[in-house]
Amino acid sequence: MKLSTFILNHLIDLGVDTIFGVPGDYNLRFLDYIEEEQRLKWVGTCNELNAAYAADGYGKINGLGVLVTTYGVGELSAMNGVAGAYAENVPLIHFVGMPSTSALQTGLPVHHSFGTGYFNEFTEMWTKISCATAQLSQTNWLVEIERVISTAIRKSKPAYIAIPADLFDMEVDDNIHLQFSRGSIGHEEQISQICDLIFENLQKSQMPVAWLGCNTRQFNAVELTSDLIESLNIPFAQTITAKSLYDESSDQYLGLYAGNFSPVDLVKQTFQKADCLIRIGVRITDFNSGGFSHKKFENIIDITDKVIRINGHYFVGVNTHKLLTTVVDKCRRDKIRFDNYLHYNRQTATKNSAPKDLSWSLNHFWDYTVSQIKPNDILLADAGTSFFGIWERNVTVKHLLLTQVLWSSIGYTLPAGLGASCADLSTRALVFIGDGAFQMTAQELSSIARLNLPVIVFLINNDGYTIERAIHGENAEYNDIAPWDYCKFAKALDNRINTHKVKTMEQYQQVLNLIDSNQSKHRTHLIELMFKRDDVPKMLTAAVKGMSKQNS
Amino acid sequence: MKLSTFILNHLIDLGVDTIFGVPGDYNLRFLDYIEEEQRLKWVGTCNELNAAYAADGYGKINGLGVLVTTYGVGELSAMNGVAGAYAENVPLIHFVGMPSTSALQTGLPVHHSFGTGYFNEFTEMWTKISCATAQLSQTNWLVEIERVISTAIRKSKPAYIAIPADLFDMEVDDNIHLQFSRGSIGHEEQISQICDLIFENLQKSQMPVAWLGCNTRQFNAVELTSDLIESLNIPFAQTITAKSLYDESSDQYLGLYAGNFSPVDLVKQTFQKADCLIRIGVRITDFNSGGFSHKKFENIIDITDKVIRINGHYFVGVNTHKLLTTVVDKCRRDKIRFDNYLHYNRQTATKNSAPKDLSWSLNHFWDYTVSQIKPNDILLADAGTSFFGIWERNVTVKHLLLTQVLWSSIGYTLPAGLGASCADLSTRALVFIGDGAFQMTAQELSSIARLNLPVIVFLINNDGYTIERAIHGENAEYNDIAPWDYCKFAKALDNRINTHKVKTMEQYQQVLNLIDSNQSKHRTHLIELMFKRDDVPKMLTAAVKGMSKQNS
Repeated sequence: MKLSTFILNHLIDLGVDTIFGVPGDYNLRFLDYIEEEQRLKWVGTCNELNAAYAADGYGKINGLGVLVTTYGVGELSAMNGVAGAYAENVPLIHFVGMPSTSALQTGLPVHHSFGTGYFNEFTEMWTKISCATAQLSQTNWLVEIERVISTAIRKSKPAYIAIPADLFDMEVDDNIHLQFSRGSIGHEEQISQICDLIFENLQKSQMPVAWLGCNTRQFNAVELTSDLIESLNIPFAQTITAKSLYDESSDQYLGLYAGNFSPVDLVKQTFQKADCLIRIGVRITDFNSGGFSHKKFENIIDITDKVIRINGHYFVGVNTHKLLTTVVDKCRRDKIRFDNYLHYNRQTATKNSAPKDLSWSLNHFWDYTVSQIKPNDILLADAGTSFFGIWERNVTVKHLLLTQVLWSSIGYTLPAGLGASCADLSTRALVFIGDGAFQMTAQELSSIARLNLPVIVFLINNDGYTIERAIHGENAEYNDIAPWDYCKFAKALDNRINTHKVKTMEQYQQVLNLIDSNQSKHRTHLIELMFKRDDVPKMLTAAVKGMSKQNS
Repeated sequence: MKLSTFILNHLIDLGVDTIFGVPGDYNLRFLDYIEEEQRLKWVGTCNELNAAYAADGYGKINGLGVLVTTYGVGELSAMNGVAGAYAENVPLIHFVGMPSTSALQTGLPVHHSFGTGYFNEFTEMWTKISCATAQLSQTNWLVEIERVISTAIRKSKPAYIAIPADLFDMEVDDNIHLQFSRGSIGHEEQISQICDLIFENLQKSQMPVAWLGCNTRQFNAVELTSDLIESLNIPFAQTITAKSLYDESSDQYLGLYAGNFSPVDLVKQTFQKADCLIRIGVRITDFNSGGFSHKKFENIIDITDKVIRINGHYFVGVNTHKLLTTVVDKCRRDKIRFDNYLHYNRQTATKNSAPKDLSWSLNHFWDYTVSQIKPNDILLADAGTSFFGIWERNVTVKHLLLTQVLWSSIGYTLPAGLGASCADLSTRALVFIGDGAFQMTAQELSSIARLNLPVIVFLINNDGYTIERAIHGENAEYNDIAPWDYCKFAKALDNRINTHKVKTMEQYQQVLNLIDSNQSKHRTHLIELMFKRDDVPKMLTAAVKGMSKQNS
């Protein structure tokens, strides 16, 4: 067996069926093996940044994304995309084809290098934005492949493997089986002690509330967390980053909590009144915490990966998954419920329904859109007016890729939509993206259409960098962008793309009906939505006040 | 005066009149100062990679390029572009707006960071691809600005300055004057000793030849080198990288020398016969040396920045500029000429003329194009079939940005054309780029048109990654790309762009005549040139043999 075959078999075992990237002469031999392998699909993108975003979108849904680039020029172009996966905890393996072993050994000044004879600079750069990095050699390849890939999966982060071009064809043994262990071992006694302390503090409370984040995915406890909250019967909110991870149709669900940015007053009020917080898998970032304006509880039970804080007590190195299992068991066994403490008024919670006022505005657009979303849809909302628009509303879908909440790289969602759609071909991917963001990565619409993917791009055309205008420089020229003809643009990339231009609610409803009636053989749509440039979500207005203050 | 004003005044003093970049909330305050400053133009690009390429193109012509991005997402997107400037020795200052001092001090998990409280990761990455890096603070700013900018200019490399957002408005003293010293001091005695040794070896030779590279720019000796060769009256060749730096219409000019890749046999033959090589400013890389097949001379005088090699003698730390001045003086004073040694046959050298055969092929396209190029044109040829097409032919123009020869990042020339054109508005910029490369950075055509720049894009449509096909995977699907409608694409970005589609020589001649007659108010043109996908320059065929061998 060749080394390439060994690697690809391993990726297939891990559930990968699509690989993203761009050809370059140092990786072409690897691509031969990918192209020959029937169980894998190669998706070449227009450039490497877009490939990284696509692998990220795929990895979020599939559980592992794979990216292939070439040495220097290719890998460096992908850096922002991979760093986003690092910030947002997406498992990703990035393979880079390097110059051949002999070129490395003699320090040849070959192209795509600095000509200095050093070949480690880029790998060293990757150590800052990867959980593990390796340069394979004839001797280290097995140990390094195991180490790097298992670390990426265990830590849910990107990892980097550079492979000299000659090694792709290297003969390796046929019968190698890699085993990965996940998670750490928990100590029964410690777990039981922490569990008791949790209930002790919880039962001191008259009015507890829960705040759930997305890091529960990292300790594989999304369902456990839902079970716990349901058993306790306490009201819960989510972080922005967790949006749609928990059941928004539950009677216990309050809405998003993000301190002063919280879009629904009820949520803020409930948090104000509450005397105890159970916080599970929450990552405190500027957006998540409403510019760090979240309520600081005296009685707090904070459960994160390996670190548990119960009021003044800290426990570090805990197997969080095991702890939560124990807590849920105890809760059910002892029937610990807070039925009496459900003081909040569910009736006032926002319900989504199509707007009655049919005038065209960003608010009405979002209201109507949310009413039309299908439970199986994959949703991607770009950093900017798009994610604020979604955050303000309740929506439960199969996969919501609202992120990157922390990394917030604009233009991310279009290539990520390509990747997400490749990972789940059974459903539609809806990409919400502003015009400024769209221009960053626009060419990737071409790859989406080429694969005839059921992706609908909602291009929010508000004439420039609206989120930047809201933060600073409302009328500054630097926030202007060139006014493209976006429908013509889409047609130029692929004439089969269905394009729609919308200026009124009536037109918008017609377009969505048309798409629903599914008459077109080609499944990719671009809807250009015209808005005034000062039409911004309420929540954005609240948030930018925080941002401005933070930057001064 | 504010810190921003101080920095901008300093850049203006250094001859900068245009700054490239993309807004982001951490740099918006800096952009305010740029927008207000009448002596500066802000050119916002569609994304940061393109901004870096544009700043590089501008820097190559202007002598210093300036790039502004935002923390994390912005700066990482620019990395490949800046690394290219590092590989190719382009002076560039990259300013990055960071989170505010207070966020850094308290380690706030703000957006565009990893939320870890560390803010040094990216600066550390930049140390690998910059000659100097700094994070400004309230105390270090003056020393660091001086150090970093002067280093960039002295080393002709990119440098990096990160500025916390609050410092842009910081009040600084009004009367600060920065002075830069360039180069090192040479020791008279050593210089004189080396000079003697050079002539001693030269005069042993019966048939010397010169090979000139582009690193003469680094020690500011392009003209000195030309003077020396003219005085000595010996035949000379250039490296690929130096293409068009020296006078190709000179009687002494042989052509490009690149070992086995050399496109003109006469050059190889002259090198074969010669018994002494004067090599000045030559950088041995895989392309430059013809896959390292260049002739290894016994009698060699190799003059590079600070390192001089004369046969077995090495002198390190020499002021090369001063040495060359001394050599030229001595040569003129003592009338040292090699008139008798001009054995080569000038008559057989390739002369450019319009082709007589008017059938449409890549070869005929290049022959005709070169015959139509004006001496003042700026030429940019992308890595791939484009630069090989130019290398095969003699052409002398005002600015030839053939590079990136070493870095070879495809897609570079379109944004670099934007930058180069901004640096010299008096003339046309001709961008030669393949379809695969074009798709990488295509959106930047929008910025070129928005500024109504006299840029003509020659889009060589040969249906995919032709250079990769030539190296490996001739019929592999991974070398296919989506077939865009490029003329429609250009019109979608900006309807004023003049578009032309060419399939025959007759059409091509008509288009060039039409452009020459200059009837359009809008000066940006896109010419889509249709070629067969296996129609590749001869020199590429020779080169890829070397590449394939190198990668195995």
